[in-house]
Amino acid sequence: MNINTMDAAEFRRRGREMVDYVADYLENIEQRPVYPDLEPGYLRSLIPTEAPLEPENYEDIMKDVERVIMPGVTHWHSPYFFAYFPAASSYPAMLADMLCGAIGCIGFSWAASPACTELETVMLDWLGKMLQLPESFIAGSHGHGGGVIQGTASEATLMSLLAARCKTVRQVQVSNAKISEAEIVSKLVAYTSEQAHSSVERAALIGGVMMRKVPTDKSYAVTGDMLKKMVEEDRAAGLIPFYFCATLGTTPSCAFDDIITLGPICNEENMWMHIDAAYAGSAFICPEFRPLLNGVEFADSFNFNPHKWLLVNFDCSAMWVKKRADIIGAFKMEPLYLKHENQESGLVTDYRHWQIPLGRRFRSLKLWFVFRMYGIKGLQAHIRKQVALAKEFESLVRADKRFEICAEVIMGLVCFRLKGPNELNQNLLTKITNSKQIHLVPCQLSGRFVLRFAICARTTESRHIQKAWQHITQLTFELLQELRH
Amino acid sequence: MNINTMDAAEFRRRGREMVDYVADYLENIEQRPVYPDLEPGYLRSLIPTEAPLEPENYEDIMKDVERVIMPGVTHWHSPYFFAYFPAASSYPAMLADMLCGAIGCIGFSWAASPACTELETVMLDWLGKMLQLPESFIAGSHGHGGGVIQGTASEATLMSLLAARCKTVRQVQVSNAKISEAEIVSKLVAYTSEQAHSSVERAALIGGVMMRKVPTDKSYAVTGDMLKKMVEEDRAAGLIPFYFCATLGTTPSCAFDDIITLGPICNEENMWMHIDAAYAGSAFICPEFRPLLNGVEFADSFNFNPHKWLLVNFDCSAMWVKKRADIIGAFKMEPLYLKHENQESGLVTDYRHWQIPLGRRFRSLKLWFVFRMYGIKGLQAHIRKQVALAKEFESLVRADKRFEICAEVIMGLVCFRLKGPNELNQNLLTKITNSKQIHLVPCQLSGRFVLRFAICARTTESRHIQKAWQHITQLTFELLQELRH
Repeated sequence: MNINTMDAAEFRRRGREMVDYVADYLENIEQRPVYPDLEPGYLRSLIPTEAPLEPENYEDIMKDVERVIMPGVTHWHSPYFFAYFPAASSYPAMLADMLCGAIGCIGFSWAASPACTELETVMLDWLGKMLQLPESFIAGSHGHGGGVIQGTASEATLMSLLAARCKTVRQVQVSNAKISEAEIVSKLVAYTSEQAHSSVERAALIGGVMMRKVPTDKSYAVTGDMLKKMVEEDRAAGLIPFYFCATLGTTPSCAFDDIITLGPICNEENMWMHIDAAYAGSAFICPEFRPLLNGVEFADSFNFNPHKWLLVNFDCSAMWVKKRADIIGAFKMEPLYLKHENQESGLVTDYRHWQIPLGRRFRSLKLWFVFRMYGIKGLQAHIRKQVALAKEFESLVRADKRFEICAEVIMGLVCFRLKGPNELNQNLLTKITNSKQIHLVPCQLSGRFVLRFAICARTTESRHIQKAWQHITQLTFELLQELRH
Repeated sequence: MNINTMDAAEFRRRGREMVDYVADYLENIEQRPVYPDLEPGYLRSLIPTEAPLEPENYEDIMKDVERVIMPGVTHWHSPYFFAYFPAASSYPAMLADMLCGAIGCIGFSWAASPACTELETVMLDWLGKMLQLPESFIAGSHGHGGGVIQGTASEATLMSLLAARCKTVRQVQVSNAKISEAEIVSKLVAYTSEQAHSSVERAALIGGVMMRKVPTDKSYAVTGDMLKKMVEEDRAAGLIPFYFCATLGTTPSCAFDDIITLGPICNEENMWMHIDAAYAGSAFICPEFRPLLNGVEFADSFNFNPHKWLLVNFDCSAMWVKKRADIIGAFKMEPLYLKHENQESGLVTDYRHWQIPLGRRFRSLKLWFVFRMYGIKGLQAHIRKQVALAKEFESLVRADKRFEICAEVIMGLVCFRLKGPNELNQNLLTKITNSKQIHLVPCQLSGRFVLRFAICARTTESRHIQKAWQHITQLTFELLQELRH
């Protein structure tokens, strides 16, 4: 039995073909319907019910990619994809991922592949400097802070909440040795905006702590006053406020919590402040957007996703902490098979203590390739171009009196709706989804059903925005016609 | 400012070069020292302190891969790498990962890319059938169970523990509505082997529940009697046993917990049984190893890592549950921006409810490519070859009276040591590590310092085993000489 089904020579050939397939796919993506036209369960009947006993031909597999897979793909990199938030994609990141796959190291400790750990620390320093993060978040050669690549913002939020929980339990036990951990945890309260991402509430569920939603102002942002009021009430009721997750760029409307007023309250109240800037964080590399990050100096941890808006393919969620000891201390485990002689030197980072999983890929290569191939200026230009496209769409909406803009357009997201009942907008979205020419998702703002139009693909241009708007107004015309009859 | 730093045409050219670089790297990997020769902090001085403002040349980046990265890589795919457990790697998996990167969808819900979700469900069915998992774990068209790809076994363990915690809390509250969640959680007890991976204990820390370590027998396995005794003691003390994590193939010595006796106890005691077979699970596709999985029918969830031993590049950890509702119910969140019209049909799987992160890549492509390019027979041949190489190494060790084998060699791991004090073995390992010709890590068994020799790389052959043993005996000779003087 020859188990070298595919050797290096065949990989050279098939790899070249795959490079061309990828380039063809991305060059011609706008000719594919952005959203698939099929029913749930479509795939099972298209392939066998069991794995083959004998090896198959590579050609047959590639034919099946077009026959089985592509009809069921929602094309996130189509210039007509305006749903959710962008998933970053660029050729340099894809090349780096090929290299990452070949090296194939599992970088859970420094010794498991020193380059994997060290490039990550330095890339997070580069990126932190691009965002002008305070010095305390930069690892440098001797810092107490530093950065790590998490898989997703959800994991960063969870890690910060768990670290805060651990820190608070220890602090309470120092002043009252008799109180049990369970009793302390039962009194802990975390806070976040009512507009925060569902993963924040989920982190509290996982961590087994109470979470209170802070109401937002008319721009859908949390301000210091609102948090302070809730914290004081809870303290008076004998609870222990310990954690606040601020959002910069909420998922529904890209609102920005007022961290300048929130930060000092968290510091005074001895609460961990985590900042989730999953989408918007990339924009802070532009000086004109950096003021939105003012107040980060009060935070204990900060996170955003280069895999959303900084041209680095998923997964790559950048997280910084002010005190590494806080996050490492929460869950350090040292079995003998993971020990190595350098770990006590203080110079060494073992990233497994910073995250939920043990294993991790060499993801910093993607950052390195993208930063160098685009340069800071190229990345800034990408952000600015997408914001300009959102402004262009906003002005199209504003020029049509049937529509209204539902939240200030600050970055690449436009929240809009037809003036009138929610049902009307639900019907419009259904028409849009069914037509499969563009793809959007809705959100809810102040009880209103709102359409979210996010600039997503790297290759989206003005002509795609114009065409999308023509399409929306055409469907609106049809909808209003139908209602009249 | 042109921000198309690299367009499709250049990607075609650079992609081909990268394919060749990857093939060259893997074809010539054994000429590189398997373990790097450098001090912590080596990398920072080799590259600038900040990201470049302007784009750089691609050639310069690739030159830096050899100058900056490669000297710091621990080469996990060198045939002289025998540390930890294998990290799987194959050319078909790498090709599938290229495709995954290009499609670049984030498959958190069915609608976000139906093919991504549906191929995963069917591939986990294929794989489940390869392992002869009970029908209850197979999703089929109407099943209550099914599979999911997690990032790592740590995440699978955590998800199962959290699902069990949630289920138990609800059950207790049904019979006693007055008891608070915090009070229930404070009484929950999870169990696992004292030989279990550190991530199991970590899952309990994250979940905020007590974890008790069950002692093992002389083969380092947990048996039913031992668990039963602890559970009875804890119930008598008013605690609530709720979860047991069995290990099939422990990290230190590849021991197998006796799930045939453990399973019925868990079922009787209303405890969730999770099986962590991270490494060994791949071997169950071979009929001769499948008996080690007997008892899986008692489990609530089962997990192993195709990214360890089934030629699928990291990350790809396969997890099955008997009742999807148990795992989904624990943390379901439904914000409007993630809703889609098909989600209530019952036919649809939204994998975000099955895992810690929200986002996820199209990882099932790797399984599909690997299953089809190797066929079940090819994958079985890979397992059998690596087990045979371990047996070959075992017989070399047994033939040398200075050494002893420390645990039965069942799969691809050999635990051995020099007869004599731990210090002697520590010194031998230090010599091995410093010589950088082969790479191993130690473990502790019954208080003894033991060397772990794991067959890792896909390309490891008999000649590498022979050369590794010659090298070990040469260093042993030198060590014993030095001790004599």
